[in-house]
Amino acid sequence: MKIHNFSAGPCILPQEVFQKMSEAVLDFNGSGSSIMEISHRRADAQEVIDTAIQLVKDLMNVPDTHEVIFTQGGASLQFVMVPFNLMKLNGGKAAYTETGAWAKSAIKEAQRMGEVQIIASSADKNFNYVPKGYTIPSDVDYFHCTSNNTIFGTQMKSFPDSPVPVVCDMSSDILSKPVDVSKFDVIYAGAQKNMGPAGSVVTIVNKEVLGKTGRNIPAYLDFQTHIDKGSAFNTWPVLAVYGVMLNLQWLKNLGGVPEITKRNQAKAELMYAEIDRNALFTGTAEVEDRSEMNATFVLKDESLKAEFNKLWKEAGISSLEGHRDVGGYRASMYNALPIESVQVLVDVMKQFEQKFG
Amino acid sequence: MKIHNFSAGPCILPQEVFQKMSEAVLDFNGSGSSIMEISHRRADAQEVIDTAIQLVKDLMNVPDTHEVIFTQGGASLQFVMVPFNLMKLNGGKAAYTETGAWAKSAIKEAQRMGEVQIIASSADKNFNYVPKGYTIPSDVDYFHCTSNNTIFGTQMKSFPDSPVPVVCDMSSDILSKPVDVSKFDVIYAGAQKNMGPAGSVVTIVNKEVLGKTGRNIPAYLDFQTHIDKGSAFNTWPVLAVYGVMLNLQWLKNLGGVPEITKRNQAKAELMYAEIDRNALFTGTAEVEDRSEMNATFVLKDESLKAEFNKLWKEAGISSLEGHRDVGGYRASMYNALPIESVQVLVDVMKQFEQKFG
Repeated sequence: MKIHNFSAGPCILPQEVFQKMSEAVLDFNGSGSSIMEISHRRADAQEVIDTAIQLVKDLMNVPDTHEVIFTQGGASLQFVMVPFNLMKLNGGKAAYTETGAWAKSAIKEAQRMGEVQIIASSADKNFNYVPKGYTIPSDVDYFHCTSNNTIFGTQMKSFPDSPVPVVCDMSSDILSKPVDVSKFDVIYAGAQKNMGPAGSVVTIVNKEVLGKTGRNIPAYLDFQTHIDKGSAFNTWPVLAVYGVMLNLQWLKNLGGVPEITKRNQAKAELMYAEIDRNALFTGTAEVEDRSEMNATFVLKDESLKAEFNKLWKEAGISSLEGHRDVGGYRASMYNALPIESVQVLVDVMKQFEQKFG
Repeated sequence: MKIHNFSAGPCILPQEVFQKMSEAVLDFNGSGSSIMEISHRRADAQEVIDTAIQLVKDLMNVPDTHEVIFTQGGASLQFVMVPFNLMKLNGGKAAYTETGAWAKSAIKEAQRMGEVQIIASSADKNFNYVPKGYTIPSDVDYFHCTSNNTIFGTQMKSFPDSPVPVVCDMSSDILSKPVDVSKFDVIYAGAQKNMGPAGSVVTIVNKEVLGKTGRNIPAYLDFQTHIDKGSAFNTWPVLAVYGVMLNLQWLKNLGGVPEITKRNQAKAELMYAEIDRNALFTGTAEVEDRSEMNATFVLKDESLKAEFNKLWKEAGISSLEGHRDVGGYRASMYNALPIESVQVLVDVMKQFEQKFG
């Protein structure tokens, strides 16, 4: 049976990425060697990471002021690297918005290193909306926000004007829609949603903002290290980055961000229309802040839970369970999820309504 | 033509690991999903990392006092994590031996955070030996050494008694020979030699030595975080750890460390016997400190370089070039390299001597 994979991450990737990856694990580009056993310094390995970097630049129209790097440790290590690179050693302070679990983790790491001003929060309503109308102070070292909150199903539809450098965790919606990179100073994203398999992180850095903190930054945590070494400061995760490269090539061949934006909008419209139409369900996020990547919804009558779960599982749907902080259901609709899978879920919801509505 | 892969890392892994990995990329254990698209929180993914951790414990006889964790960022990030976890915030100091390029990098990171005493160094002879007879001070926070120096072809054959916690970078010889883990407080190793593909690091930590520095450690850099979360603090690199698990299963089925020790000794004896016998070559490392993992040697007459390179390349040998810091050649003979490949190289060296000796 075909599986409709709504996993929140690591998540569905295109079938052709799996196919090419599987082949390269046995024989990388006809070299007779597995991609797992070659030196990361070999010319054909170097080409992989160079291509992946160039594809990010091309797909996102990264301006020359910015550089693209691949590192490891997930967004969780970026939470640490951001204050190391941008927060002044003496009297350092930064402004953060608190829009979910990951924003809270980012805040916690920055607080170890300086003063954090939480200038807006949606904690009062269990993060079911995106705060707006706040002012970013001009005396902080940087402003940090999270563009998409996977767990709570909210997404920033616009970004505030900022008098200070802007840092954004785009882990769960990078490359899903157009972004004007020139308006950001640091964008980072764990790969395991729209970029590729788990095991690498992409960071897009405005080179101008670095080197101003007075900190003695550990080499691995210094964005400049990875910029200077073309992301090959130490052995980079060859398999993971190869997966990213293949996935970005797929996206480019498809028509890039303009085309995937249309597809993602169509999927989200289909999904939210059914959540709103169906008498048995309620969406959990404020309508204007709904995420195109993760649609969160609950049953109005929790006693029907077992019945609904049985139905969607029978239809081949997997990983639809909501995060424990929200409960209910979460349909993650990342780039590689076909609209057919959303249609299957919508059909199941309709069928469920007919039986129990 | 069969390739004889002497790469210094990422390096050769067993063919059955490539085969199983290639299959799992298309269909993980008959689940219908690629291992690249499943949540790391799913039960069958959890089993992968739990099994990998247990295999390290079993294969290395890790005592109950110690825990095994998998993280990312390579040994380079461990260079940072070690002082964060073991060097006191106030008046912190540590003793390091300087035995090669990686030891120097480890020293550099510790120096950012406290006082480093280099208690022994082989820098005077371009790291071609392992210093001995030094005394570890009793007033430092820890002692750090590198068990195998990949670039220079030297290896510690015994470890000094220490009045303070012992930290060892075993990136390039872990699981190649018996180690009494109880004598170490932190052992770490980038996976990409004897453990698996690039993209994960194993750390074996004596839980007793943690929490004593007075530092506010960033969550990702705190060994305790990963111990508490069973290495699933954040999304772990599923592909990379799955490769480690498969490789450790291969090692276990083979007979574990006792069996691989015999094989590695046989390979090293064959290799060094030829280096010593052959009139056209000289080994670069002191005989008593020679590494069983990386045999470094040079041509006595550099003008024959092109001729020798032609011969070994024709024989299907790959990645035999020495590191630029030593020059000449480096035969890396990690666990998965069959003795047949060493025999091919030895035959080429004999043939070369017959033609040009």
